[in-house]
Amino acid sequence: MILIKDNDNFETMKTHTEYIWFNTSQKIDFINITEKINSIIAQSGIQDGLVLINPMHITAAVYVNDNESGLIHDFKTMLKRLVPEHVPGEDYHHNWTGEDNAYAHLWRTLMGHQVVMAVTNGRLDLGPWEQSFYAEFDGQRRKRVLVKIIGN
Amino acid sequence: MILIKDNDNFETMKTHTEYIWFNTSQKIDFINITEKINSIIAQSGIQDGLVLINPMHITAAVYVNDNESGLIHDFKTMLKRLVPEHVPGEDYHHNWTGEDNAYAHLWRTLMGHQVVMAVTNGRLDLGPWEQSFYAEFDGQRRKRVLVKIIGN
Amino acid sequence: MILIKDNDNFETMKTHTEYIWFNTSQKIDFINITEKINSIIAQSGIQDGLVLINPMHITAAVYVNDNESGLIHDFKTMLKRLVPEHVPGEDYHHNWTGEDNAYAHLWRTLMGHQVVMAVTNGRLDLGPWEQSFYAEFDGQRRKRVLVKIIGN
Repeated sequence: MILIKDNDNFETMKTHTEYIWFNTSQKIDFINITEKINSIIAQSGIQDGLVLINPMHITAAVYVNDNESGLIHDFKTMLKRLVPEHVPGEDYHHNWTGEDNAYAHLWRTLMGHQVVMAVTNGRLDLGPWEQSFYAEFDGQRRKRVLVKIIGN
Repeated sequence: MILIKDNDNFETMKTHTEYIWFNTSQKIDFINITEKINSIIAQSGIQDGLVLINPMHITAAVYVNDNESGLIHDFKTMLKRLVPEHVPGEDYHHNWTGEDNAYAHLWRTLMGHQVVMAVTNGRLDLGPWEQSFYAEFDGQRRKRVLVKIIGN
Repeated sequence: MILIKDNDNFETMKTHTEYIWFNTSQKIDFINITEKINSIIAQSGIQDGLVLINPMHITAAVYVNDNESGLIHDFKTMLKRLVPEHVPGEDYHHNWTGEDNAYAHLWRTLMGHQVVMAVTNGRLDLGPWEQSFYAEFDGQRRKRVLVKIIGN
């Protein structure tokens, strides 16, 4: 184990909140938001702490994984195989309300609906292949993602 | 992007911890805890920060999604289809210990076993349909959920 | 509900960051990291706050569940059943890049790729059976897990 930083500059402990808007052209779409998050951290002035990235809509996910198009294909294939967009017969009960996006609610639960990441030296503290994604499962309309940073 | 709040009232940075008890009447039950969490935030006096909502038992989940009974039905159906409560033949190895709740350990992992939410203006900072749920998969006994708030 | 602690010793609010290295002997391996995390918390001197435990590699998970070997068997069986290590025919598209670990990227998403836990009285604030695990899905090489604590 290597100790990197023991930060007690408590004088500047603060929070910073932003809302990012998305309107994807595809109903199902994956967007790499890593640099967007880094720019928000830079604006906040926070050097060290935690950042929460949380979609404010319940048919989208935020997750951390590889920025590789084949893998994104594999995620979509896995989700459609485990939870089909529609079920022959009675379909999802949520769709009885007039919605047709029950699958999107379920997918976002399997994919992970939020992440908390570390901020170190004023940036996301990422491994070599870690990238943060917004995964839209019922898009083509305006949706928000909340970003809240706490630290110093 | 819209900057909402840049809060550096560091003088009041603090933490607040509570444990909520549940004893569901059903073995499998879903409870909307959104207003319970808001009341804990109000008691804490914290206006801005993060709140962790974490079940202290490993056969329950906490997740954020729609408060719609059809969707809750769909979650149960999905979980039972992907991970049956019992497997014909050798069953889950965890059940060899005398337990019969292996499915509940697995379900809570698929559903997401905790959430971190944003606190803004003294309340959960939620989108229009975001609600926080306690999902009990092996209930009818007393169980705790830890709520810890950090902020100012 | 029972109020445990309302901590406003803001003078000592700080962060602490460490990187833990793992090199598992098995390609797929589960390691209980609970006491390792407790020792990092002790070194930090932080009594109350939040700790993020986040693998910096995207073919590993961190999750909280029971320390029981049958259950760990059941997790592996579930993952292999829901997302086979290889798909007959075209296989995962991620593997077209020359990798053979697409399954590991998908498993870590289903298992939960990070946790945030509460720190109370200088230790992880855990229920009776909660233990924190590092789940390696493509091991036999050096990999890091980031641990960041914020609190006072």
